[in-house]
Amino acid sequence: MLSIPEYQNEFLAYLKTYPFGKAPEGLYAPVSYIMHLGGKRLRPVLTLLAADFFDGDYRKAMDAALAVEVFHNFTLVHDDIMDGASVRRGHPCVHEKWDVNTGILSGDVMLVMSYKLFEGYAPELQVALLRVFNKMAAEVCEGQQYDVDFELRGDVSLDEYLLMITYKTAVLVGTALEMGALVAGAAADEARAIYDYGVNLGMAFQLQDDYLDAFGDEETFGKKIGGDIAENKKTFLYIKALEGLDNEDAQLLRDLYELHPADTEEKIKTVKELFVSSGATGIIQDEIRSYTQKAFDCIIPLGTEDSKKQLLLDFGRDLMTRTV
Amino acid sequence: MLSIPEYQNEFLAYLKTYPFGKAPEGLYAPVSYIMHLGGKRLRPVLTLLAADFFDGDYRKAMDAALAVEVFHNFTLVHDDIMDGASVRRGHPCVHEKWDVNTGILSGDVMLVMSYKLFEGYAPELQVALLRVFNKMAAEVCEGQQYDVDFELRGDVSLDEYLLMITYKTAVLVGTALEMGALVAGAAADEARAIYDYGVNLGMAFQLQDDYLDAFGDEETFGKKIGGDIAENKKTFLYIKALEGLDNEDAQLLRDLYELHPADTEEKIKTVKELFVSSGATGIIQDEIRSYTQKAFDCIIPLGTEDSKKQLLLDFGRDLMTRTV
Repeated sequence: MLSIPEYQNEFLAYLKTYPFGKAPEGLYAPVSYIMHLGGKRLRPVLTLLAADFFDGDYRKAMDAALAVEVFHNFTLVHDDIMDGASVRRGHPCVHEKWDVNTGILSGDVMLVMSYKLFEGYAPELQVALLRVFNKMAAEVCEGQQYDVDFELRGDVSLDEYLLMITYKTAVLVGTALEMGALVAGAAADEARAIYDYGVNLGMAFQLQDDYLDAFGDEETFGKKIGGDIAENKKTFLYIKALEGLDNEDAQLLRDLYELHPADTEEKIKTVKELFVSSGATGIIQDEIRSYTQKAFDCIIPLGTEDSKKQLLLDFGRDLMTRTV
Repeated sequence: MLSIPEYQNEFLAYLKTYPFGKAPEGLYAPVSYIMHLGGKRLRPVLTLLAADFFDGDYRKAMDAALAVEVFHNFTLVHDDIMDGASVRRGHPCVHEKWDVNTGILSGDVMLVMSYKLFEGYAPELQVALLRVFNKMAAEVCEGQQYDVDFELRGDVSLDEYLLMITYKTAVLVGTALEMGALVAGAAADEARAIYDYGVNLGMAFQLQDDYLDAFGDEETFGKKIGGDIAENKKTFLYIKALEGLDNEDAQLLRDLYELHPADTEEKIKTVKELFVSSGATGIIQDEIRSYTQKAFDCIIPLGTEDSKKQLLLDFGRDLMTRTV
């Protein structure tokens, strides 16, 4: 197996030469733009890694990996429209650089392209890949809808929140890995095990993201700290804080989440204090550790050699302790 | 083979019982809404009909037919957002009844659903269906982009216009038929012949639509007459009229297509007179006949019994002379 940076380089080399379509330019220039905007490429790397993990050849998983990355970027283009975001990875969003209609249509053709990328696989394998991909794609749409719904609701439960991030984030991580396993010809239960590893890791990743959004270092995290708080996003920290605070402080937190002050500094500071005093920050860190452990538990029983397993364990440990 | 109304009824019965998903309601209620808003269901009917034409069983083509109809409705939902339309089949568009974000996301999940509908087919067949479906889906996006581009350009050539409607409208008609043929196990050249029949028929259909938009009967056509003229849409009639008019009248027509008068009646009347005096109305009717004939030429050489061919010829003739 290669190292994570080596898989990244192999994927980037493939991405660089991949022809995303030319005419009409208004449709395809935004596709090339977003696909080359950077990012960690973690999802396609996991597809490649899973192929090698099950004694396949990561090169054969390249199109499946690219399908994962094209799909992920399709969701970014459409989500950024829905969220009214303007910046993505330090550059203007597609609907900002062009317009909303362009964002809708270029996103649509990206979804079609992600399906087209499976065409090179033999029928039995292609059908198996599509089955997991279709399921994941519908769930990602459902997760985004829950996210939209929850913004308008004050009473989101922790279970609902966890289901939302499972669909919106974690199933794509699991499916990225499962597709690599399928390309390698892994047995159904092995493919399912690596999917479960990915879903749990995806949960740990998203919760870590929630944590870093409030308590990360602006320099290394690359985003403005406190963004979720400023936007009154009811993340894990908020829901758990409400549970842990006494009535007065819980009401203070709820009231703060009704406000949109021009200067958010004071609000972010107070909310972060409440997150800490409620015990929510400790709980989220336990939860991140717990999901990471659950992920490890999925692969430890597999009959793969230990050195390969170690790479997946290291990858999970790095994600859990990341600051970016 | 059944008759067209019988295929329509069979399709509607299947559509009625099909579960389009429940939760989250904000995602799936708009899907059910648009899918049950009516329409002629011509595209899925062609899939069923093609399956029987090639001695298959239309019942086995039902999911492919539904995929075609779900895909078509996905394009309607997203196109209506892009066009700023407010009414679809006499009812509010999805983005009007709900909002733009709902239109985007529910459209996305419909595209995924259309792919999911192929899952019941055996691997070899599924892969063959997906290959034609993927190609068509990308072309439909390209056609929509050309349509958007052409609104901002004054110099659209006839060839460019014909390419746009080929992609935006005709390839879906061809693919609907080809998928029915593939489900029936037709040979590749037979499937291609019925695809070509469909593409030519789709062209005739769209040109007839352009004609009826200006010269149809409001009562039977169901849309406000002159809509394309009011919106300055450069259709076949406009492009051909510019070619046929003397300099002065051509300039008048160009000038009229710069205006957005509050009362469009006078403008529509003048433009229609120019369409007639330029000879464009005669030319479009020749063109509709010519595409219909080309469609017929694709199926006449096939080894199918004449009574079956007759149904396709009748269908084409009905489309050509339709007033709705």
